Amino acid sequence: MSLSTDFERDLLADIPLARAMQLSVRDYSADELVLAAPLAPNVNDKGCAFGGSLGSLLTLAGWGLIVLHLRQTGRDCDVFVQDSQMRYLAPVWGDFSAHARLGEGETWQAFSETLATRGRARTRVHCRVPLPEAGDACTLEARFVAIAKSPIGAG
Amino acid sequence: MSLSTDFERDLLADIPLARAMQLSVRDYSADELVLAAPLAPNVNDKGCAFGGSLGSLLTLAGWGLIVLHLRQTGRDCDVFVQDSQMRYLAPVWGDFSAHARLGEGETWQAFSETLATRGRARTRVHCRVPLPEAGDACTLEARFVAIAKSPIGAG
Repeated sequence: MSLSTDFERDLLADIPLARAMQLSVRDYSADELVLAAPLAPNVNDKGCAFGGSLGSLLTLAGWGLIVLHLRQTGRDCDVFVQDSQMRYLAPVWGDFSAHARLGEGETWQAFSETLATRGRARTRVHCRVPLPEAGDACTLEARFVAIAKSPIGAG
Repeated sequence: MSLSTDFERDLLADIPLARAMQLSVRDYSADELVLAAPLAPNVNDKGCAFGGSLGSLLTLAGWGLIVLHLRQTGRDCDVFVQDSQMRYLAPVWGDFSAHARLGEGETWQAFSETLATRGRARTRVHCRVPLPEAGDACTLEARFVAIAKSPIGAG
């Protein structure tokens, strides 16, 4: 199975709220991870997407981008979100998706080098829920830390 | 029934994810709204509380604080979150609660006066998930806007 199929299976197995949201992995490349969710289980009192669902999908997309990169490069790490800034720009009236990329100025090379040297590394991720026509419904800038499970040099 | 019981019933009826989280209203005063959730439906892959559940509960607590104030004062408004900053400080290994209060320097009086004059008003809310011993597991600073449903002077 592909890396992204395994990742979707793990998310749905391990996180009950991901199941409740009916989350799926839509697309994955080295540069971008796209998670998707239908509106119905994620609706709010106004009939549009619930802010908590949008924030959860955005945060999971950012987290997943790093987790998938680490799986691809064979590093065994725990990945934690440290902080995030979210902007709600327009309501979402249909099914939606969250697109995650590294933040401006961040590179996988710098991240991997720090991780190899220090056993932990931080990076910023930019995530957005695009509107069907153009522009974004919401954006999330988040900072994550990856911590190697086995100490450096321990094998 | 009390205002907070009605609010809990509405949340669970209108927002499927609030049901999935098994959210409840623990306490409400003019100054503070406390929402609670059990760990089991809100767990992540590491066995502690999922960041998306923490963010959702914090955002709903902030939103609810304003919605309940407006219901108490008889104003018919829509309330939207505009932006938020979240900090994850420590993992949560048990059931948890989100406590929402007005942000520093904000007052209900200023909020109500602006709403009465302009038909809309913004306010900042400070929300936190306390740790069982002391300190916070995470915090959220969020800005909300309330928009009157009927135009000023329309009755």
